Amino acid sequence: MTGTSPRPEEGPVADAELALLLEVAATPTPGNVDRRRDLEDIRFEHMLAGAVGARPGLEAAANGASVGDAFERAVAGMARRAARNTQFGALLLLVPLVRAAGESRLDPAGVEAVVEATTVEDAVGFYAAFDHVAVGVGERPDEVEAPDVAAGADAEPALRAGDWTLSAVMADSAGVDDVAREWTTGFERTFAVAERIASGEGTVLDRAAEAFLEQLATHPDGHVAKRHDEATAERVRERAAMVREESGGPETFAADLVAAGINPGSTADVLAAGLFVALERGVSV
Amino acid sequence: MTGTSPRPEEGPVADAELALLLEVAATPTPGNVDRRRDLEDIRFEHMLAGAVGARPGLEAAANGASVGDAFERAVAGMARRAARNTQFGALLLLVPLVRAAGESRLDPAGVEAVVEATTVEDAVGFYAAFDHVAVGVGERPDEVEAPDVAAGADAEPALRAGDWTLSAVMADSAGVDDVAREWTTGFERTFAVAERIASGEGTVLDRAAEAFLEQLATHPDGHVAKRHDEATAERVRERAAMVREESGGPETFAADLVAAGINPGSTADVLAAGLFVALERGVSV
Repeated sequence: MTGTSPRPEEGPVADAELALLLEVAATPTPGNVDRRRDLEDIRFEHMLAGAVGARPGLEAAANGASVGDAFERAVAGMARRAARNTQFGALLLLVPLVRAAGESRLDPAGVEAVVEATTVEDAVGFYAAFDHVAVGVGERPDEVEAPDVAAGADAEPALRAGDWTLSAVMADSAGVDDVAREWTTGFERTFAVAERIASGEGTVLDRAAEAFLEQLATHPDGHVAKRHDEATAERVRERAAMVREESGGPETFAADLVAAGINPGSTADVLAAGLFVALERGVSV
Repeated sequence: MTGTSPRPEEGPVADAELALLLEVAATPTPGNVDRRRDLEDIRFEHMLAGAVGARPGLEAAANGASVGDAFERAVAGMARRAARNTQFGALLLLVPLVRAAGESRLDPAGVEAVVEATTVEDAVGFYAAFDHVAVGVGERPDEVEAPDVAAGADAEPALRAGDWTLSAVMADSAGVDDVAREWTTGFERTFAVAERIASGEGTVLDRAAEAFLEQLATHPDGHVAKRHDEATAERVRERAAMVREESGGPETFAADLVAAGINPGSTADVLAAGLFVALERGVSV
C-alpha cells in the first residue's frame, strides 16, 4: 500500500478476507477443505461463509478495537454465518496482524507490540469467543496453567484473579498450540510463509499449496496432535516431507488424510496468516 | 433479517459478497469458472479477488449512494483486485438489488422503484465504469440508440444532451442484453432463481448449479449471443435442456463448453443475483 488514504478494497480488511478465501481455494492442502475437497463436517461453502461473517471483527481490528473484542466479534460473525467452526485459529492469527497493519506496523516487531499490549480484557474477549462455537481443543494438557477455555466467558473472574493478559494466556499454551506459539515468536512461521509466497513462481494458489506442504513437512501439526496424538502428527509430517517431490504425491496424500479424518488445521491457520502478510506486501492474484 | 439493527455480517453487503462467492463455487455452471474449472483468461482466484474488491461499491449502494456511483465504485474495486473483468454484469444486477435491500424493499416493486429513480448522473457513472475494465460487449446492435458504451466517461455530453437516465439506457438494451432485460422486468429471472434456490433440496451449491442449468435451458445466454451468435446461444440452450436429466451430462457439457471457449456469462450474472435474494430471504449455507 502506498499513500495515506488506501482504497478500502486494498486495505488490510480486504486483504484479510481475501487471505481466508485463497487459503481455502489453494489445492491440495492435504487434510483440509480446499477447492477440490470437502470434509465430512465442513464443506467449501461453509468456509466462504465463515470468511464473510468474520469481516466485521476484522474491520474492528483494523480500526483499533482491542484484540480480544475484535477477535470475539470475528468469531461470533463467522459462527453465525457458517454455523460451525471454520476459521477460529486463522482469526486468532489475523486479528493481531490486521491490528498491526492498521497501525502501519505489519512486521514482527509491530505485531509483537500488539501482543505485548494485550490486557486481561483481551483475554476475557478471547475466552468469550469459545461460547460462540465448538472449538476442538483436545484434552487439556498438564502444563497449561491458564483457566480452562471450556469455561468461556465464565472464566472472567479467574482471569482477573490471576491477572491473565491475553499474551500471558498465549504464552502459557505456546508449548502445545501452533497458533499460540506464533503469538510468542513474532509470528515467525507466518512471515516465513509470506516470504515463500511472495518469492515463489506460478499462480498464487499453487504457491500457497506449496507453502502449506513445506510447513506440514517441517512442523508437526498441533491440531492433529491434539485430536489424535503426537505420533500421528509426526507421521503426517514425515509423509508430507516425502510426497513433496513425488508426481501426484500431494493429491494422493490429500485423499488419504481426508479418508482417515486427519485434519492439519493449524497448518492451514498459518497459511491464511502468511497469505495475509503476502497480500499486504503487494502479492496479487 | 429481523430487528431494526441487523448485524453487519448478516446485512445486504455481506449477502451480496457471499452471493458472488457462492456463484463461482457452485459446480458445474457449464462454460463458466466454477469450483472445479478455470477459464483460459479467468481463474477461480480472480473471481474471489473481484468479489472482495467490489465490496466498497456494494457498501455504498447499501448506504444509499446513487446507483451509478456505487456501480462505478464496485467495478473499479473489482478491476483493481482482479485485474480483469470478473463480475461486471453480476454487479450491474446486484447494485440496484442491494440498494433496494438497504431500503428494506427487496421485492420486484422495490427494485423497480430504484430503477425508475435513476438519473442521467447514474448513466454517467455506468458509462464511466467501462473505463476501468475491458467488458466484452460484442458488436453494437443496430437497434441500440443510447451512446456507445465504448466511449466510457467521454459519453457524458451525449448522455446529458439526450437526457439518458440509466433506466432509459437499460431499456434501450433490453432486447439484446440479459442484464438490461432484468432491469426492465422487475428482475423477473432473478427472483425466480431465488425462489428455486430457496425451495430446492440438497446443498446450496447444488441448488445453485441446478438453477443455473435450468436458466441456461430456458433462456439463450445473451453473452454467448454477443460473443458468438444467436444460433450458438440457441444450440447451448438446447443442449442444456437435454443434459439436465443425463447422469454426468452437466459435467460433460461443462468440459465441452470450456474447451470450445463458450462462456454463458449472462446466466452466471443472473445466478449471482438470485443467490443474493435467496440469502436475503434466509437461505444459509
